[in-house]
Amino acid sequence: MREFELIREFFQREQADLLLEDKAQASVILGIGDDCALLQIPANQQLATSVDTLVADVHFPADAKPEDIAERALRTNLSDLAAMGAEPLWFTLALTLPKSSNYVSEEWLRGFSRGLFRAANKYEIVLVGGDTTSGPLSITIQVMGAVESHHAMRRDGASIGDFVCVTNSLGDGAAALAVMQNRLALNADHEHYLRERFYRPTPRLIESGLLKGIASAALDISDGLVADLNHICEASDLGAVIDVENLPLSPALLAVGDLQQARTWALSGGDDYELCFTVSPEKMPELAMLIAQEKINATVVGEIVAGVGVQCELEGEAYELTAQGYQHF
Amino acid sequence: MREFELIREFFQREQADLLLEDKAQASVILGIGDDCALLQIPANQQLATSVDTLVADVHFPADAKPEDIAERALRTNLSDLAAMGAEPLWFTLALTLPKSSNYVSEEWLRGFSRGLFRAANKYEIVLVGGDTTSGPLSITIQVMGAVESHHAMRRDGASIGDFVCVTNSLGDGAAALAVMQNRLALNADHEHYLRERFYRPTPRLIESGLLKGIASAALDISDGLVADLNHICEASDLGAVIDVENLPLSPALLAVGDLQQARTWALSGGDDYELCFTVSPEKMPELAMLIAQEKINATVVGEIVAGVGVQCELEGEAYELTAQGYQHF
Repeated sequence: MREFELIREFFQREQADLLLEDKAQASVILGIGDDCALLQIPANQQLATSVDTLVADVHFPADAKPEDIAERALRTNLSDLAAMGAEPLWFTLALTLPKSSNYVSEEWLRGFSRGLFRAANKYEIVLVGGDTTSGPLSITIQVMGAVESHHAMRRDGASIGDFVCVTNSLGDGAAALAVMQNRLALNADHEHYLRERFYRPTPRLIESGLLKGIASAALDISDGLVADLNHICEASDLGAVIDVENLPLSPALLAVGDLQQARTWALSGGDDYELCFTVSPEKMPELAMLIAQEKINATVVGEIVAGVGVQCELEGEAYELTAQGYQHF
Repeated sequence: MREFELIREFFQREQADLLLEDKAQASVILGIGDDCALLQIPANQQLATSVDTLVADVHFPADAKPEDIAERALRTNLSDLAAMGAEPLWFTLALTLPKSSNYVSEEWLRGFSRGLFRAANKYEIVLVGGDTTSGPLSITIQVMGAVESHHAMRRDGASIGDFVCVTNSLGDGAAALAVMQNRLALNADHEHYLRERFYRPTPRLIESGLLKGIASAALDISDGLVADLNHICEASDLGAVIDVENLPLSPALLAVGDLQQARTWALSGGDDYELCFTVSPEKMPELAMLIAQEKINATVVGEIVAGVGVQCELEGEAYELTAQGYQHF
């Protein structure tokens, strides 16, 4: 199949079918099919954009289901918009596909397209352009969103005494990998839960909208809490202490039956796509209210302190982390 | 070298050193180093964006000089902004590098970075984000620019009777490939000229700025004149005739000594990154004035007609094209 037909068949037509009747659609002056997409940013808003590449057998098993690969690729990118407090608008897809292969076929593309638009539809983000090339399987997605001027959640806003919080639970991403690589076996419900967390992580867009006036700094946890919190520390020129006993762990993670392993995954496993954010003591009542109203699931896991780097403590004693965060290289 | 150090070493610091003191720099609220870049579109302008992937040994020889690979990657992307009439503002870079290889090293990255920022500096476009992953060598660049609302040059504006024009000369890209693959030998000056045309194509941004009020439709020629003009025809629901004898050929291409081969390259070779645009008879005097003043180098090569598809004619007789445009698949 030739490039133009391929793009038309699986992406352009599919996108047209969706016809999102919301502001994302209205803001697309010109979508797929010209030299550039032409896009209208809402008035008084800034463009927030982030790009990520997923390579077969590096970021996902090459024989994973194409629906799953696509959903994960778009959802993890949306997580970067959530981390910034931006609302999703548009994305581009650069897809490199092997010319001949026993796992990438028309059927594969159909599945990929199905997963991609399922996630795109759910989070109301519109495909506005892309590129299809032949080569080893990899997927590059760039998401674009909008955030009110001066309201973005950045990494450099933390202050001494701010509380360090995370949404939901940590460590599930690493545990899911262990299950998929047959290093861990749990009951079917727990394994299903972990697989879903891995392939369909929830970008914390609702939480992010609520936290915008509350958090002093924020990011999403892709490399592990310690590594990512360290980015807030570096950007804010401060240090942090994590209280390991307070790490929120899912029932599946607790079912592993090895608390030290679970905590290591929560601290340094990565692939969680939860938000890590800091809140000043003055703003804590507002966060507590959101938690009490069950509008947000968040836990205080530490504090911003003077100094450099992230220290872990268990019941007040120094806690040695046995592994580091995920490194691509 | 770990991912964060690598990015910092070769890209973030380099970008900071440039300190472009123009609107591109002023419009970057937050560049590399947070979850998203935060960008401010100029008032009353729309965002124009385009993404392209270059894969080693598909789009360039894996052992090509890293400076050349980088310059070509950014310049060909800028050509898409030119095709739209948009002014360059920002770009992202998703770079996939082999973990161990005999051609990608720290030295390679240094060269890549040098070429990238040479082009970025020349065309005043700012690197605002990216991703570095390990895998087979490939480069995805997404350029972003701005164009006044309703002033973009689209593909769907051609009318019957419009003249079809191209900037500068065609066929050099394909001839350059023939030289690099040892299928063609010319004198040193011509070969040097062709190599430069291949690795450092000039995005026609100046021409594009001048043509915005004049052209009824436009695009850049990446797949070959016939294939690309056909995109204008399809979008405008019309056909076109190309007068083969009017194709502008460079002295290097004429030196090939085989006019039919030269014309085939000009019609279907691709990789030229010149503009193809249409102009109504009423607007031709304005174009003629720009040509006479040497503000733009352009040639009329055909006409938009009723019907479907692109026909070639030589001195009024049907002309059979011997090869098709470049296809990735």
